[in-house]
Amino acid sequence: MKKKLSDYDFPADLADMDERALELLSYQIRDFLISSVSKTGGHLASNLGVVELSIALHKVFQTPKDRIVWDVGHQTYVHKILTGRASRFDKLRRDGGLSGFPKREESPHDHCDTGHGSTSISVAMGMAEARDIEGGDYSVVAVIGDGALTGGLAYEGLNNAGARKANLIVVLNDNEMSIAENTGSISRHLSRLRASKTYLGLKKNLKRALHEIPFVGVRLYSGAEHIRKALKDLSSLSDGIFDDMGFRYFGPVDGNNIRDLTYMLSAAKQIDGPVLIHAVTKKGKGYRNAEINPEKFHGIGPFDPATGRELCGGEGRSYSNIFGGRLTDMAARDKRVVAITAAMPYATGLSGFAERHPERMFDVGIAEAHAVSFAAGLALNGLRPFIAIYSTFLQRAYDQILIDICLQKLPVVFCIDRAGNVGHDGETHHGIFDISYLRHMPNMTVMAPMDGRELEEMLEFSLRLSAPCAIRYPRGNAPSAPGVKSKRKRAPLNLGVSERLLSGDAVEIWGVGKMLGVGEKVRGILKKRGVSCGLVNARFVKPLDEEALLKAAAAGKYILTLEDNVSAGGFGESVVALLNRNGFASAKISTVAWPDEFIGQGNVNSLMKQYGMDAESIAERLCALFERTT
Amino acid sequence: MKKKLSDYDFPADLADMDERALELLSYQIRDFLISSVSKTGGHLASNLGVVELSIALHKVFQTPKDRIVWDVGHQTYVHKILTGRASRFDKLRRDGGLSGFPKREESPHDHCDTGHGSTSISVAMGMAEARDIEGGDYSVVAVIGDGALTGGLAYEGLNNAGARKANLIVVLNDNEMSIAENTGSISRHLSRLRASKTYLGLKKNLKRALHEIPFVGVRLYSGAEHIRKALKDLSSLSDGIFDDMGFRYFGPVDGNNIRDLTYMLSAAKQIDGPVLIHAVTKKGKGYRNAEINPEKFHGIGPFDPATGRELCGGEGRSYSNIFGGRLTDMAARDKRVVAITAAMPYATGLSGFAERHPERMFDVGIAEAHAVSFAAGLALNGLRPFIAIYSTFLQRAYDQILIDICLQKLPVVFCIDRAGNVGHDGETHHGIFDISYLRHMPNMTVMAPMDGRELEEMLEFSLRLSAPCAIRYPRGNAPSAPGVKSKRKRAPLNLGVSERLLSGDAVEIWGVGKMLGVGEKVRGILKKRGVSCGLVNARFVKPLDEEALLKAAAAGKYILTLEDNVSAGGFGESVVALLNRNGFASAKISTVAWPDEFIGQGNVNSLMKQYGMDAESIAERLCALFERTT
Repeated sequence: MKKKLSDYDFPADLADMDERALELLSYQIRDFLISSVSKTGGHLASNLGVVELSIALHKVFQTPKDRIVWDVGHQTYVHKILTGRASRFDKLRRDGGLSGFPKREESPHDHCDTGHGSTSISVAMGMAEARDIEGGDYSVVAVIGDGALTGGLAYEGLNNAGARKANLIVVLNDNEMSIAENTGSISRHLSRLRASKTYLGLKKNLKRALHEIPFVGVRLYSGAEHIRKALKDLSSLSDGIFDDMGFRYFGPVDGNNIRDLTYMLSAAKQIDGPVLIHAVTKKGKGYRNAEINPEKFHGIGPFDPATGRELCGGEGRSYSNIFGGRLTDMAARDKRVVAITAAMPYATGLSGFAERHPERMFDVGIAEAHAVSFAAGLALNGLRPFIAIYSTFLQRAYDQILIDICLQKLPVVFCIDRAGNVGHDGETHHGIFDISYLRHMPNMTVMAPMDGRELEEMLEFSLRLSAPCAIRYPRGNAPSAPGVKSKRKRAPLNLGVSERLLSGDAVEIWGVGKMLGVGEKVRGILKKRGVSCGLVNARFVKPLDEEALLKAAAAGKYILTLEDNVSAGGFGESVVALLNRNGFASAKISTVAWPDEFIGQGNVNSLMKQYGMDAESIAERLCALFERTT
Repeated sequence: MKKKLSDYDFPADLADMDERALELLSYQIRDFLISSVSKTGGHLASNLGVVELSIALHKVFQTPKDRIVWDVGHQTYVHKILTGRASRFDKLRRDGGLSGFPKREESPHDHCDTGHGSTSISVAMGMAEARDIEGGDYSVVAVIGDGALTGGLAYEGLNNAGARKANLIVVLNDNEMSIAENTGSISRHLSRLRASKTYLGLKKNLKRALHEIPFVGVRLYSGAEHIRKALKDLSSLSDGIFDDMGFRYFGPVDGNNIRDLTYMLSAAKQIDGPVLIHAVTKKGKGYRNAEINPEKFHGIGPFDPATGRELCGGEGRSYSNIFGGRLTDMAARDKRVVAITAAMPYATGLSGFAERHPERMFDVGIAEAHAVSFAAGLALNGLRPFIAIYSTFLQRAYDQILIDICLQKLPVVFCIDRAGNVGHDGETHHGIFDISYLRHMPNMTVMAPMDGRELEEMLEFSLRLSAPCAIRYPRGNAPSAPGVKSKRKRAPLNLGVSERLLSGDAVEIWGVGKMLGVGEKVRGILKKRGVSCGLVNARFVKPLDEEALLKAAAAGKYILTLEDNVSAGGFGESVVALLNRNGFASAKISTVAWPDEFIGQGNVNSLMKQYGMDAESIAERLCALFERTT
């Protein structure tokens, strides 16, 4: 009977496995990944692509002594399997389960918690310099995808590591994609390298040069002179750009061939100074559905492995699709409208826009800072850029939003997808800081829609506004009926004006975006307890509807704010500050927001409950407070 | 009699000036710059370096129709002279005077407000794409220094512009320096290019190919076929890296030779697609003091032109020097201490550290995001990085501080220089956002010293703290006597504990850092009016000293907070929120901070007064409020 993956003693067991055994292992891992991720959801395509690479890395390097820094870290499932965590995949990305990213708390084999792209070379360089200062003796490896290489931070890392000459191995995992297809000249350059004759020649040379190393003992092999010489010869095949950056370039090597990779990595270990190995892998390899549609299978919910169809359709349309649909229409009407994405045309809902208006669609790669400065240039020359980026990734352009856009009051619209708690992607992906980091930027307007219709209205409004503007909306589907069932005609959008949805005497609940759904439930619970609550759709986080808030305060109402953002610097604090400035008793306001800690992974609603942000918990607390003040 | 610079009708008059006239003009501009900047202070060395380049650009291109985007923009003094602003240099960088950076409000020849580095290629690409979408017919030029080229954003710009093929000219102004000497492999690569034989050969070829263009009419010259051919031949001399990025590379050309530059630029205008011109200039050229010490003359206060000595010594030592001195000592005691600067070892006070501990000093270039991710790697392997960066530039690493450092609770210390209002550098350089952007980061501690001794104590404390930590301190000299004259022995530092400096019954003034100086004056004024104020040194912006604040509130005291940061998300708001959470009447607290707008340039104290943040204005307002509430 075949041994189960969880029965191995990984990574130790890899040492004695020969090439054939490792190949069989790669099949077993692929089956396991497809079956497991089809149940839990997760990042599938990238992990299928790095099965052989992960095996070869753990064959050649001895973690935790040697350090491997995985860029982004969504491609570490195989690494997790090979470091003894196969048995925990049933709870991948769940509350209390295995993280979808490296986590130091989870295993000594995870050397750095990651989640955002292009950091690995910088982090690995830090590790290598620290090692040299302290006189340590181990290898440091950064594994970075060609997608992440479009990020400027990766270049900053190459530029510094290449000049310092520390021993450092960068494995470029080139699957010819980031999340969507790659763009940019670097990507074209890699294509040329892949297409060059070097590829096959190198394999032949390498085999000849390295054939004396016994495969099983490759990890322990310490380089002989003739290997160094062979490598030196090979480096004449090297490429301009990485050489110019001070790296010794080797490749391209077939990244789905365990033997070639193993030899290449064990050789790289022998070389002094920074080395870059260009490994070509196939995203989604071994699972046809993922090979055909790697962007869909980049990050996916539970699916049927036979058909590749996602199981959880859910009701209604996603906010992303509503955004993309409306923007496409707007662009048809207004020739100034252009769209920018940072490597996520599909995920942000812009595929349709790209088809309909290809000349006005810009995919800049994983380069958020550039996306924003580029938008400044477009706006300066009269266009109207809409930038669709996830909340957590827009963090990377903080300075450009402030200096390039807000300072110049340019009409650029930030369409902030995945704002608030995103659930299973956890700590590094929750979009719970954007209100706090945007609210203190002068000239910025910040809005949040309560449903799909309002998102469309806000998009139209933002075009009319002609000033820096952000619209934040959550992951997932918009409520299919209006978020709060109001029979009245809804009020048109006006800058800094809120919308009263439901009336009430004692308490006024001010909700931001999707939190109005929670607010409505709170209202229902309190109604049963005899407390009458009004419900107000804030619409604008900035500028605040000061008039309405002060009116409520003047009427002696208790105010409750609800937001899917951290408390510090958030919407609630701005309301408290407003009331304070105007001399109202602070005891009559209460704010609900995320606390001052990193929020883990799990089901969105469970997390809300865990942190007391569900309707029941809020109602409970509010009752206590309300009774105290009245 | 020689015509004064302000008597010309620039840029129009350039059209008819021949080579000899332009050369004389360059001498006149240099004299003017040295004399003018010696009185006002400003960026001297970089402007002396680009006299010929600026002349050639305005000779060849017709702004405002053609667009020139200056990276950072501190090197636009010559551009300002050549666009009719010479007469306004007596008020350069002063209240209501000429800005030290491009400003669209100031002139139609300024196409983009800038101040932070590495954005120009992205912005120019946006302008070029917008032009092509709208069918415009003009040139777009980005002028970027080799220093700014170390920033990842510049690479993102090259990567995208190179692939899109829009008509765009990038002029690489290579003065072999950023602010300090350049580091990184790109810089080494440029050295190799400068040293290559291509240089002279190109000049000869270029002259031969272009000699038929009449110099005076060069701006109007529209390219003939033989020029294109000559350029095509020249491009065989091109270089790997920029070619790989999709640019046509030409150079190096002598960037201080008007004729060569003019021909090169007029030729570049004829070429389709993205072009990069590598111009080698000399920073500080023509003024010996600046040539010898370009880092000192990068940004300088008023000085004696004969000796190069700065006039305003002022009393005491600068915070930067106190920081550098103490960190050097700490590194001698503790082998784990390492220092990181982003291209500013001198300005941040780290020159001494670099001399004493060269193996633990890292200058990463203008690459703040890398500085932080790199620090994460160092800290993960046991070292204790101290990163010295100006507040305004640390904004560029927002995401890395949050995700790479705070999430992992790594012991990295952010030594935030130039926090608060910096005066003459204006809008893009005030460090008035850091409290707001750091306070909402979980696991972060934020401190501010009131004087030099406390800065030293905070540095020692931060090493013991072993967690993410920021120390913010202002530009300029620390008070030479302790900031507030207290005869008592000062209390030792404890996490989240404030220090009571002076007692009082009715009001408690909580000051952050240098604002305690203002607080002391407010206390003096109010004392005369019979209002007794206590004075508290907050020390910690985060965590707040909740106990002391709640105690003061419970005692019925009126609380006044003072901070050199924006109001939104700042220290004051966090105190208001704390009191609110604990049920205290908000009417008894008042906050002083910068309002929600970009603050212009000028004398620090004048700006404080202008915005009501001086002691007199604050005391006035406080009296009114205090009387209302008691």
